[in-house]
Amino acid sequence: MLNNEITELLQIQYPIIQAPMAGGVTTSKLVTEVSNTGGLGMIGAGYMTPEQILEQIREIKELTSNTFGINLFVPNEFVGTENEIEQANQFLKPIREQLHLQDKDDLEIPEFNIVVETFHEQIEAVMENHVPVCSFTFGIPSRKIIDDLKQCGIIVIGTATTVREAIEIEKSGMDIVVVQGSEAGGHRGNFIEDNQESLIGLMSLIPQVVDKVSIPVVAAGGIMDGRGFMASICLGAKGVQMGTAFLTCVESGANEIHKEEILHTYEDQTVLTRSFSGKWARGVKNKFISEMQQSEAYLPNFPIQNSLTKGIRKASSLQKNRDFMSLWSGQSPRLARNQTVKSLITNIIEEANITN
Amino acid sequence: MLNNEITELLQIQYPIIQAPMAGGVTTSKLVTEVSNTGGLGMIGAGYMTPEQILEQIREIKELTSNTFGINLFVPNEFVGTENEIEQANQFLKPIREQLHLQDKDDLEIPEFNIVVETFHEQIEAVMENHVPVCSFTFGIPSRKIIDDLKQCGIIVIGTATTVREAIEIEKSGMDIVVVQGSEAGGHRGNFIEDNQESLIGLMSLIPQVVDKVSIPVVAAGGIMDGRGFMASICLGAKGVQMGTAFLTCVESGANEIHKEEILHTYEDQTVLTRSFSGKWARGVKNKFISEMQQSEAYLPNFPIQNSLTKGIRKASSLQKNRDFMSLWSGQSPRLARNQTVKSLITNIIEEANITN
Repeated sequence: MLNNEITELLQIQYPIIQAPMAGGVTTSKLVTEVSNTGGLGMIGAGYMTPEQILEQIREIKELTSNTFGINLFVPNEFVGTENEIEQANQFLKPIREQLHLQDKDDLEIPEFNIVVETFHEQIEAVMENHVPVCSFTFGIPSRKIIDDLKQCGIIVIGTATTVREAIEIEKSGMDIVVVQGSEAGGHRGNFIEDNQESLIGLMSLIPQVVDKVSIPVVAAGGIMDGRGFMASICLGAKGVQMGTAFLTCVESGANEIHKEEILHTYEDQTVLTRSFSGKWARGVKNKFISEMQQSEAYLPNFPIQNSLTKGIRKASSLQKNRDFMSLWSGQSPRLARNQTVKSLITNIIEEANITN
Repeated sequence: MLNNEITELLQIQYPIIQAPMAGGVTTSKLVTEVSNTGGLGMIGAGYMTPEQILEQIREIKELTSNTFGINLFVPNEFVGTENEIEQANQFLKPIREQLHLQDKDDLEIPEFNIVVETFHEQIEAVMENHVPVCSFTFGIPSRKIIDDLKQCGIIVIGTATTVREAIEIEKSGMDIVVVQGSEAGGHRGNFIEDNQESLIGLMSLIPQVVDKVSIPVVAAGGIMDGRGFMASICLGAKGVQMGTAFLTCVESGANEIHKEEILHTYEDQTVLTRSFSGKWARGVKNKFISEMQQSEAYLPNFPIQNSLTKGIRKASSLQKNRDFMSLWSGQSPRLARNQTVKSLITNIIEEANITN
């Protein structure tokens, strides 16, 4: 159970992956502590420039010789009309006022061709630096990219939220599929089905995927301790990927307010919102989510809305104000602990061995 | 694992409860076959008259001497204005036309005091006939009812969708709590939190409830085979309650069209709707759900909307037309089989023993 296809493929000791949370959580300290403890540390590089990626890879290689990985966002085509952006800025105006921000902060509206270009540069950085593992969210990259990565000896992981998506990931030639249950915090990884259709709980999702694909399946969503680990294995997963559980760890780079919010919230207080980024994501309900709920349906797509709220999230965080931060969390916040990575991982392994 | 507090309390062989599905699914054949195989068969009596309850208890007692149970709906206060009902009938008009039904079929609009009266008569019937187990959905009955049932030696079970609801159930003096994950088919059992807040996946829900209550926890939602059974046990549940898995069994009284639909659908095809009954419930998406989606928010509460759609559901079923039937299903339809109850239960037990 602790030694299987996943540990062999990834050359790690335990089939425990630290979810590649974007936005500053996956510091080199967090990533390397996970890898040094026997799990797989992952850089959440979706929003990072190629230079930032190079810099962090260099840092990590100084701190561990174990396997680590990186996650990139597959660009989805998007258009944002000026009208749509203007309207979204109107919706955000009262929030900017509460934070004493300029009417519009210096907005850089992303363009699709630039996003694609950056993505290719990110891939280059990953290949040139022989990052051992590369995972993707929000879709499947081109066959060429997957082949190139594999040719470099890089293990390629996809993210699915439904059986159909998992089958497409297997067909694309990727090595492993992470299945993200409806319990998961942060952004939904759905790319074929829409948001509602793709909200499948892990109790249903894992066995149905396992029956239809032959590549190893890793479970993600609400898993926090040895119980969730063992349950995932029983359902047919070969390993787990945990986000919230690592986010509140001592070594994580998450904002202290964010950590405290998770440590003091309940399972019925996380909601799905697209107001922060234009993509559906799960987080602790706060003033931003409530105030934006009415306009949610009219906001521009990812990553445009994400750019529009960047200044708000930053200011809220600097002002130590929980009200307008994106407090991503899965559905198991009651199980979150402010502990070391080592304690989190070794407790899971001990529980798994006892049950075993 | 197979012998625990639950099997001892309920005097059954295996900790497997057949969910008390209402609306004709839980025929005496199904209930007694489950009980005779070592699980707990349950009558879904929410919509039954006291006379129908008496009749079925008599039938069941002739077919098994093992433990069986019954489920009742706790009445929730409701009001339906004439305007609201008129508007709902307008929404339903095009659907009635497609089924060649009268503009309004002979509608009996339920009244709250009558519903409460019937509920008390149902309780009477349960007590007089010493039904060994009585479970409740949609809330917590009065302390008096719980005490009276327990005084009669009846084991009392509550249904919760969140930690808060489970704590209230324990406080009320009930013996066991069924936790219903977001994966579950049919009606949502939430009674404190609203629909969105109470949609917690079992991977998150089970361990968080187990940490907060000391009465035994039974898991429900998307559990179909030995994998789901074992996963639930790993997460801390003492047993499972399965609906969809029993619904497609040979012995179930579900409409054949309903069975076939589940057997040929996918995990991403079930949705939550309140258009059938006024309460949120999960079923296979069909024409009724799609056509009513726009008006969903304006429909009257349970059980008024349920009465308004009764004729539609009946006609659709008689005309063998899937389009307007309530095709309740959990999120694991790919794991459903048309098998005997005996095969379903013994397969789970074999898988559990192997893993054990």
